[in-house]
Amino acid sequence: MIGFVSLVGAGPGDPELLTLKAARRLAEADLVLYDALVPPGVLQLAPRAEHFFVGKRAGRPSVEQRTINRLMIRNAERGRQVVRLKSGDPFVLGRGGEEALALAAAGVPFEVIPGLTAAVTAPALSGIPVTHRGVASGFVVVSGHDEAVYRPILEAVVPDSLTLVILMGIGARAPLSRLLISRGWNPATPAALCLAAGTDRAHTWLGTLDALGMATTAMGDADAPGTIVIGAVVSVGAALAGALFSHPAALAASQAV
Amino acid sequence: MIGFVSLVGAGPGDPELLTLKAARRLAEADLVLYDALVPPGVLQLAPRAEHFFVGKRAGRPSVEQRTINRLMIRNAERGRQVVRLKSGDPFVLGRGGEEALALAAAGVPFEVIPGLTAAVTAPALSGIPVTHRGVASGFVVVSGHDEAVYRPILEAVVPDSLTLVILMGIGARAPLSRLLISRGWNPATPAALCLAAGTDRAHTWLGTLDALGMATTAMGDADAPGTIVIGAVVSVGAALAGALFSHPAALAASQAV
Repeated sequence: MIGFVSLVGAGPGDPELLTLKAARRLAEADLVLYDALVPPGVLQLAPRAEHFFVGKRAGRPSVEQRTINRLMIRNAERGRQVVRLKSGDPFVLGRGGEEALALAAAGVPFEVIPGLTAAVTAPALSGIPVTHRGVASGFVVVSGHDEAVYRPILEAVVPDSLTLVILMGIGARAPLSRLLISRGWNPATPAALCLAAGTDRAHTWLGTLDALGMATTAMGDADAPGTIVIGAVVSVGAALAGALFSHPAALAASQAV
Repeated sequence: MIGFVSLVGAGPGDPELLTLKAARRLAEADLVLYDALVPPGVLQLAPRAEHFFVGKRAGRPSVEQRTINRLMIRNAERGRQVVRLKSGDPFVLGRGGEEALALAAAGVPFEVIPGLTAAVTAPALSGIPVTHRGVASGFVVVSGHDEAVYRPILEAVVPDSLTLVILMGIGARAPLSRLLISRGWNPATPAALCLAAGTDRAHTWLGTLDALGMATTAMGDADAPGTIVIGAVVSVGAALAGALFSHPAALAASQAV
């Protein structure tokens, strides 16, 4: 009997921000193939599964995509329940589409379980709504990982017209800031870095577009997981910064540790 | 003792796609203030709470925002655990920012619990990744509810440069199609309507931008909940359409009903 593959989004890092469906699949899984940025707390939801890391480690190349595809397919063909666990959402800059096509081509039954994407969730956890009535009614999401990819997209958007959300762009924040200002974005546009959202190391830098390049991440790591938000909506986050509480139960739990 | 307000995203409709944290808050809530499109299955997760509908009903105006704000604040001041439950994500075209600012101004402790936004999840459940390597590395999200809002945003994006996701635009699909083609979008661009995603009535229309205006929703309702996706990524969804399985357990459960 053939197994099954679930392409699962793990959300931003907090295990409590997984979906009920994702948690159920993890509990039943035989094998979890997981990426970097998937925290240990999430893997603990899959106690009976083998956990296999297929992400990128510092200084070493990541496992090739075709190897990941082969692992999913072979294990499903052996009858195993496989969870392919990706940080955020599998279909937002996560190559989930490529994995789905490989599974379809191999005739392996699969499903997609969306997860909370950092594009919306990292700003939200910093109090920043990506849209806000009268301020911004739309937003653009783009990867900041590779200039050849982000430059044509940023050049395709009229400056100051909507909220800009840049994933995987912390290391490129200086060239991104210069590019946008050279394209006509107002240097005084509010900007934020939402760092390690959904984890205990979460913090937010609030400033302006022209200061973005000099923003300190306090993580000592240009590859720190983080989301850049540029646009007037960031000032809503600034207004909420002092008011945003964690739930009393969560606060009590963290104080008890 | 003062209560607490959780601004909670309910996701696209399937109760299984709520986060663990959202389910926990619902289980503990005294009062749930919920919008239209929040399905009964989600409300069942809050068995001990009073359920109060504050959404828009056909032919009747919705409850005013200031009334919703007052309900949240007064009930929290009476010591109640309040869940403000919104379809999708509270901060994506959901006025969650306004509610957060009202709570902050009133000194009421609150938190934001993000939910799966239809902008990413409705396409994903139809097999469409909003980004796909070599096809689209970014996407725009905009509301199609009001032309005065969507027109300037769509005019700010260079045609055929990235994936376009339009929420609340099913009723405006004909003028949206005409506007984009007049702006220079290729009429043959793949397009999809993802309807009632995450519910048992879910279905997907796949076609092209120039046919979008004539797409039938089979819901007999111009206000049907739905997400429009325009861009080459839709062809990934077409390639996956026959292969995308539900999990065997979910299939068995639905067949048993």
